[in-house]
Amino acid sequence: MCQAGKLMKPQGIPVAVVGASGYTGQELLRILLSHPSVNLVATTSRGEAGRALRDVFPRFAGSPTADLIFIEPEIDAIVASGAQVAFLALPHGVASEYAVPLLERGLRLIDLSADYRLRDADIYREFYHHEHPAPALLARAVYGMPEFYADEIVKADLVASPGCYPTSVLAPLVPLLKAGIVESEGISVASLSGASGAGKKVDPSLLFVEINESLRAYGAPKHRHLSEIEQELSIAAGKKVTISFVPHLVPVTAGIATTTFCRYTGDAKTIGDRVRETYAAFYRDRPFVRILGEGRFADTKNVVRTNFVDIGWVVDSRTGQLVLSSAEDNLGKGAGSQAVQSFNLMFGLPETTGLLQF
Amino acid sequence: MCQAGKLMKPQGIPVAVVGASGYTGQELLRILLSHPSVNLVATTSRGEAGRALRDVFPRFAGSPTADLIFIEPEIDAIVASGAQVAFLALPHGVASEYAVPLLERGLRLIDLSADYRLRDADIYREFYHHEHPAPALLARAVYGMPEFYADEIVKADLVASPGCYPTSVLAPLVPLLKAGIVESEGISVASLSGASGAGKKVDPSLLFVEINESLRAYGAPKHRHLSEIEQELSIAAGKKVTISFVPHLVPVTAGIATTTFCRYTGDAKTIGDRVRETYAAFYRDRPFVRILGEGRFADTKNVVRTNFVDIGWVVDSRTGQLVLSSAEDNLGKGAGSQAVQSFNLMFGLPETTGLLQF
Amino acid sequence: MCQAGKLMKPQGIPVAVVGASGYTGQELLRILLSHPSVNLVATTSRGEAGRALRDVFPRFAGSPTADLIFIEPEIDAIVASGAQVAFLALPHGVASEYAVPLLERGLRLIDLSADYRLRDADIYREFYHHEHPAPALLARAVYGMPEFYADEIVKADLVASPGCYPTSVLAPLVPLLKAGIVESEGISVASLSGASGAGKKVDPSLLFVEINESLRAYGAPKHRHLSEIEQELSIAAGKKVTISFVPHLVPVTAGIATTTFCRYTGDAKTIGDRVRETYAAFYRDRPFVRILGEGRFADTKNVVRTNFVDIGWVVDSRTGQLVLSSAEDNLGKGAGSQAVQSFNLMFGLPETTGLLQF
Amino acid sequence: MCQAGKLMKPQGIPVAVVGASGYTGQELLRILLSHPSVNLVATTSRGEAGRALRDVFPRFAGSPTADLIFIEPEIDAIVASGAQVAFLALPHGVASEYAVPLLERGLRLIDLSADYRLRDADIYREFYHHEHPAPALLARAVYGMPEFYADEIVKADLVASPGCYPTSVLAPLVPLLKAGIVESEGISVASLSGASGAGKKVDPSLLFVEINESLRAYGAPKHRHLSEIEQELSIAAGKKVTISFVPHLVPVTAGIATTTFCRYTGDAKTIGDRVRETYAAFYRDRPFVRILGEGRFADTKNVVRTNFVDIGWVVDSRTGQLVLSSAEDNLGKGAGSQAVQSFNLMFGLPETTGLLQF
Repeated sequence: MCQAGKLMKPQGIPVAVVGASGYTGQELLRILLSHPSVNLVATTSRGEAGRALRDVFPRFAGSPTADLIFIEPEIDAIVASGAQVAFLALPHGVASEYAVPLLERGLRLIDLSADYRLRDADIYREFYHHEHPAPALLARAVYGMPEFYADEIVKADLVASPGCYPTSVLAPLVPLLKAGIVESEGISVASLSGASGAGKKVDPSLLFVEINESLRAYGAPKHRHLSEIEQELSIAAGKKVTISFVPHLVPVTAGIATTTFCRYTGDAKTIGDRVRETYAAFYRDRPFVRILGEGRFADTKNVVRTNFVDIGWVVDSRTGQLVLSSAEDNLGKGAGSQAVQSFNLMFGLPETTGLLQF
Repeated sequence: MCQAGKLMKPQGIPVAVVGASGYTGQELLRILLSHPSVNLVATTSRGEAGRALRDVFPRFAGSPTADLIFIEPEIDAIVASGAQVAFLALPHGVASEYAVPLLERGLRLIDLSADYRLRDADIYREFYHHEHPAPALLARAVYGMPEFYADEIVKADLVASPGCYPTSVLAPLVPLLKAGIVESEGISVASLSGASGAGKKVDPSLLFVEINESLRAYGAPKHRHLSEIEQELSIAAGKKVTISFVPHLVPVTAGIATTTFCRYTGDAKTIGDRVRETYAAFYRDRPFVRILGEGRFADTKNVVRTNFVDIGWVVDSRTGQLVLSSAEDNLGKGAGSQAVQSFNLMFGLPETTGLLQF
Repeated sequence: MCQAGKLMKPQGIPVAVVGASGYTGQELLRILLSHPSVNLVATTSRGEAGRALRDVFPRFAGSPTADLIFIEPEIDAIVASGAQVAFLALPHGVASEYAVPLLERGLRLIDLSADYRLRDADIYREFYHHEHPAPALLARAVYGMPEFYADEIVKADLVASPGCYPTSVLAPLVPLLKAGIVESEGISVASLSGASGAGKKVDPSLLFVEINESLRAYGAPKHRHLSEIEQELSIAAGKKVTISFVPHLVPVTAGIATTTFCRYTGDAKTIGDRVRETYAAFYRDRPFVRILGEGRFADTKNVVRTNFVDIGWVVDSRTGQLVLSSAEDNLGKGAGSQAVQSFNLMFGLPETTGLLQF
Repeated sequence: MCQAGKLMKPQGIPVAVVGASGYTGQELLRILLSHPSVNLVATTSRGEAGRALRDVFPRFAGSPTADLIFIEPEIDAIVASGAQVAFLALPHGVASEYAVPLLERGLRLIDLSADYRLRDADIYREFYHHEHPAPALLARAVYGMPEFYADEIVKADLVASPGCYPTSVLAPLVPLLKAGIVESEGISVASLSGASGAGKKVDPSLLFVEINESLRAYGAPKHRHLSEIEQELSIAAGKKVTISFVPHLVPVTAGIATTTFCRYTGDAKTIGDRVRETYAAFYRDRPFVRILGEGRFADTKNVVRTNFVDIGWVVDSRTGQLVLSSAEDNLGKGAGSQAVQSFNLMFGLPETTGLLQF
């Protein structure tokens, strides 16, 4: 008697995942497969259409949903699946091709691309080097970081889930800028990311031999993610914030560790406590931000495959700087699981549903 | 208001974990923390007594159980916790010191050490180089591989959960030996294991620099796990089986890939089908064995952090050999999650409860 | 005054490398750049023609030869460089297109492809799935393993440098088969290889994320290298030898560890000594084979970026098997540095010239 | 006839290595073994005394010097070896116990510890938390960075070879501070280091499983190396310089990548050229500094196991910052090979002798 056969999920919210064959899509599916309130009704992939989930991702064989067949990414087919909500795990620019018609057909959307993260289409053009494909929707979209915009996400029909680097930079900085205990000028950020952040691109520089035993900065000074980082920091500070941001590629599969240098305001003797109190107040009801405390550094090992972001800090009184240390999973809190966190809010579920795996 | 605070588990079976500070203990705790029918009431560690779970394992902070305090491994304290069942994640030899009194005090036990895996105390002495500490209990113990002994496990009060290598060797071989389609003589096995299999020992040879960019065999020809492998192969074959077994240490954190060379019986043309049919019949109702099919090889990447064991094979008709390829997580199906699988059976839960994470 | 400018090599043998942009070509160049008797006069690459060595391989910047410009792989241009010898680091099938005309033009050749390793064009067709491109040259080629064919290599104008897996299998097995102390039937071999062995192919399965934290067998039962392994084992045994061979892909950049299972002849008590004596005699004058001794296992960490192959063994008297453990660098003794070892012999240099780096 | 036996080195300078069993000592020995002007006459190790080099470091078997026996670190024995120069690869504090008597006995010293890097014993106490063991020698020591102090090193009898992080920070910054094209205030540095930088300490946090798939900052804000970094930056700037420095531990064996944020002076339009020209002039005759140019980032993969340090940069005109990217091998240019570079200068050899391996 087949045990697996009995493991049918209770009726859940019908969900589609559009563009599910990359690393972000795979992690998103992984979470949705064990989410108790999700009924996965459609997954699309141009390259994998016609194949079962279990064949594309052998890891998922054994799940009750493993027999689901990838379909072509066609609007009618997605609508016909009965999905009430679609996650878009597509490249920027492409996501809009689906967002516009799917919204019209009444689905709520959680977009993991960059298409709706910026409020200003000019900034989009500056950083993404092409015209914004649907500027009219920008005002309708909510930046999907539940720690900042939970109330808006609850009601949204278009959530723009944040980028991986931005989540790791914003989580430690926004509360401090809002509280005015760090200066908004002179902020420098160094981020270290695992190779899955570069996506499943078939590029010689992403081969194992090229990344293994290699450490390298890249993408500075105008990495695309800088645009949304500065947008949200500016909102927090109440004035235009410009920062220096340098990402690094390091040989791990997943995880981002971010180190932020900023100048504190006020007295060196109290800044440690002021940081602690600010975080405690700001993140009091937020289950996925873990405050490690002063003198501690975040380690990606503790957050990979979770929706947590960990934050520690040290005070460098010799230079008047505060050093913030944060860590998250670039595919998790930086992409897939954060999108599911927004989903939980949008559908009235406890925010942690399906996300308290360790 | 803290969301995490609301996430109290429904009343579950009160469970203790004895010796929880090593890698096996950590993985076992990880699974138990999100198991819907477990109420973790005690974890012991001589080295960590007095510290909270969240401090010893920062990864677990955010779990409703993260505030649990490690206690000293004392029988009275374990019993006082109200646990109905204890997992023993202790070194061989040490496990018995707890097994004997805890059984007397009425707890059911799942022992992840080697102490009760062998039916013959002489074999134990031969491979472990000391007298068996409690030979009288050997007859009472059940070898905790649910794919072979589910009926016995259901009723057992002492389950000896298998070793990591043995699980990966037995899963592909036992059905074929039982069916008589491979010969019981001349079997050679090469296994590759990640570094967590060596435990959290502070040994220079286990430093990152020593294992990274290194590939090496070790432990042959008489690795301790060979004793339980041969015991179970002999039972399957109905006669004494002796094999050559060579483990290798490779630079991954977790995962075992095993390649087994054996001679098939009968016609080369039909052996592929006979293997497929044998596996299909033997593992029909077993949710955690995934048969990949002929011409396919198992990849640890697909099983790490799961309770699955994957099996593929190729027929080498030029030499008359069948090559079996299997993969599992040494800490998962090879240790922690397999122990939880037995727990599910012992307490009348669906076998997959808490184990269908991907 | 620039120190680097003074570092002109003494006049050396003019050498060309044809097809130098892959991992084997890169390692070969690395060795040649510091070889005291080599004057690198041409390197070719269809994709990199026109670029300097320093730009294609930033690692080589700082070498006196770093300004050499890659040229198109054209026969006239190679000949015009004045090269007396060419290393061919090209795919099988392609190498012949250069071997035939370059031999005609009077160059001596060291071919790192598989094109001239086999004595029998039928076997080539069976394993490489196309007709041999120049069967007439097979009789003229020498299998470039200096430990077996040094006398022939000295005089050869076409050396077929062995494959990476074959070197690691043949080094431990050939002396024992020749001495008759292992049986020629029932040999099984498991090899573990780093990712550089798969070449610089832009294939999704070779991305960092796919190989990192992954262990997998592949290529069995008829990996192409099996053809030359069996050819040389048969010569050693004096009769047809057929073996089972299973390669595995593991997450290191370079290195092969090979474990060989074979049955010993004669008495278990003496086999350890007989193996030791056989190796001592066979490899007495061979500087690049290091005999570790009984009970020891070879570790790739000790041989990567060298031309050494290390060999250890254990006797498994319970099963009558001898287990051989060998390690080499797949790009070194398994490719580039072994080719240079042949070069040294061909040009009357001490065999170790330029190869005693550690 | 044994080839290896013939490979005796020509008579070289007699050299001792004191404290050769750690990772720095091992890398230093590796370089010395193939250095054409070195005659290694003594290596000491308290733990390994009595064992041959080949047994302690199996990688070195095959070298003509592999039979050298480790001796106890006793002054008389070191002097008796006939060494003219000793490399000290010992922990800070311990190095002085050997430096003082060995200098008295007439040896020249290259100390790889921190004991003689600082000019000010008070700074030593502040950062190393104990009194300086031999403050009288501080004035006699030369900071062993040949790019800055070649003339002094030539004549020195006590060279204090720089720390690994300092070399990677000073190489890009010192020329720019000296030229006044970056401001001396507000400098922030993020460095990423491989695990060998932590030494061969048997510490649970250095186990493979703890470092693999982990990214973490540590040691801020007062890592010991900060003391020598600030000393040399202050000399270059002509005034007291204080910086923020955050090291990170990442899962590679060797290599440091450093990213430096600093404010440029003058016009944004010309700063790129000014940096290029400054480096070109400063490092014109320095064979081991490779200037990659603007818009390029240094990759540790290109420098590991070499004595090179690579430098690139980008101008962030939006924030007025210059971002410097540098890479070196922490055991090479950051320790062992840089010490050999000083040795070459001290003994009148070409600076690159024995160091142009790639």
